[in-house]
Amino acid sequence: MESRTISELGEIKSLAIALKHFKPGARVLVGSGDDAAVIASSKNYVVTTDSMVEDHDFKNNWSTGFDLGWKAIATNLADVAAMGAVPTAVVVALVVRRDTQVFWLEDFAKGMQAALDVFAPDCAVVGGDLATGDQIVISVTAHGELLDQQAVLRSGAKTGDQVAVAGTLGKAACGLTLLDFSDRSLIESYEEFVEIQLRPKPPIDLGPVALSAGATSMLDVSDGLAKDAGRIALASNKTLSLELKLLQGYLAILEQAAQSLTSRDMPANERDWVLFGGEDHSLLATFPAGVTLPKGFKLIGHVIERTQAGVLLDGQPLSEKGWDSVSD
Amino acid sequence: MESRTISELGEIKSLAIALKHFKPGARVLVGSGDDAAVIASSKNYVVTTDSMVEDHDFKNNWSTGFDLGWKAIATNLADVAAMGAVPTAVVVALVVRRDTQVFWLEDFAKGMQAALDVFAPDCAVVGGDLATGDQIVISVTAHGELLDQQAVLRSGAKTGDQVAVAGTLGKAACGLTLLDFSDRSLIESYEEFVEIQLRPKPPIDLGPVALSAGATSMLDVSDGLAKDAGRIALASNKTLSLELKLLQGYLAILEQAAQSLTSRDMPANERDWVLFGGEDHSLLATFPAGVTLPKGFKLIGHVIERTQAGVLLDGQPLSEKGWDSVSD
Repeated sequence: MESRTISELGEIKSLAIALKHFKPGARVLVGSGDDAAVIASSKNYVVTTDSMVEDHDFKNNWSTGFDLGWKAIATNLADVAAMGAVPTAVVVALVVRRDTQVFWLEDFAKGMQAALDVFAPDCAVVGGDLATGDQIVISVTAHGELLDQQAVLRSGAKTGDQVAVAGTLGKAACGLTLLDFSDRSLIESYEEFVEIQLRPKPPIDLGPVALSAGATSMLDVSDGLAKDAGRIALASNKTLSLELKLLQGYLAILEQAAQSLTSRDMPANERDWVLFGGEDHSLLATFPAGVTLPKGFKLIGHVIERTQAGVLLDGQPLSEKGWDSVSD
Repeated sequence: MESRTISELGEIKSLAIALKHFKPGARVLVGSGDDAAVIASSKNYVVTTDSMVEDHDFKNNWSTGFDLGWKAIATNLADVAAMGAVPTAVVVALVVRRDTQVFWLEDFAKGMQAALDVFAPDCAVVGGDLATGDQIVISVTAHGELLDQQAVLRSGAKTGDQVAVAGTLGKAACGLTLLDFSDRSLIESYEEFVEIQLRPKPPIDLGPVALSAGATSMLDVSDGLAKDAGRIALASNKTLSLELKLLQGYLAILEQAAQSLTSRDMPANERDWVLFGGEDHSLLATFPAGVTLPKGFKLIGHVIERTQAGVLLDGQPLSEKGWDSVSD
């Protein structure tokens, strides 16, 4: 275990230690070490970027370097998948503190590669940048290839379409509440939800599957179902009409955790987690009425003509409260 | 002028104000606003990422938002150009402070677009992420298209090749010394050098030109001529033999500024700036012996068989001291 700090070891040597943990990618002609990486491509590609900031998006006493590496990959690949693309390559711009240990950096690299192994084994870390600052900032840019050149946008939902979700809903938010409440026995009892918060498991492979199945719109649920459904509604100029009974499965899983917290004077309810909780990074998509939903997608409602509200739940307007990363 | 802070206005509205300043790109099928951007491509592409951290890589009392937007583009496009690629698209992950004003963000966006207008009008900002933290962190990822599929690497220098530079050498380091010394009259007298430090002007268009002319290796000089020449030498297992007389032009331009500083008890010399100064982001390349150097490139030495030292100046080993972004 390398206990020296990254500052002590220097950028080049620290990077070299981290890079050892990355596997080469299927599309990578030139990897890390030159001015830029070179990706083999003959098709349109997608690109997305997202940052995680220490004490804003994560806490170091909750998340290990491994967790953060995993989460950085999972969240960015979810954006790639939400376009219907197959992940090919990522770069990471990492700001560490002067006292961040090389061990943390190695652990972070291992977490990134572990997530790639699970979500997209052909996708690789092809480059990065390492700098020092007052807090850790992880910025990942991810790329994907579009197999049939067209992407699935947020704007294509049509009246009559089925609204469907692949992946978890509310588990990440439940996990966040559990971490925040900090009761060790509860955290152990509901370890699965804490794990989803720390190391989300979005259904990356279902993005291209949804595209092939004719998905008319898609995004990843990063800021909560209500808010993200509202984004498809707005971009498509439609209303997404959701049904509570179709969400029962998601609610049932979280019911006991909500009760346990509430009984300990930490009021919680599973409905808020499922409707407004972010960070599951599941795929929310719309499919034409006649289409059989791909395995892994679950029907939660339908697309109707635009009403005043972008999202309805059992016919009632659903507020779009959710996570805004910079507002008070 | 928008004097509210980004936190007050929120991520979505702040981003919308910034995005107004960006022009659409020639290759952009889907721009900002979806989960990812879609770039039209039928060729291999390059990708590179680089961060600038407040109080580490820049100071807010020296650099405006405009300067930083410009510099973020210039430095990243230099990496794209150094592969021989034509810049196509960039994404930016931006961390601002809670008290950063929307005005700063607008100014930053204007600086990015102004640099794109000058360096690569067909290249566009296609996406971004905005978060809050304790200090400003600017992470840009830039992409470029390889016209003939092959990139120019650091590792291709051959014995007998000409070593050549396009762009400035030492001006950015001189500018940094002037800013650090903080004498207003000197800063005004040598405004050109301060400008290169704040808003570098790398010869982006000469990257693909060098590739077409048969460049065998190339990089952008970000950490100083000695250090970056050493990188080509190491990757190519050759030695770069530079001649001081071929560097006279770069030295002469900076001589007076060095004397002015020295006479004010701030010892400075133009040789250190030219040999060891970073941040000019000029292109350092090697070309086969018989090749006429493309207009804009200047001969500064030759490639010889590997000696113990990677870089020689007039036959003497040149230390590779230079900038390491994380070490003490």
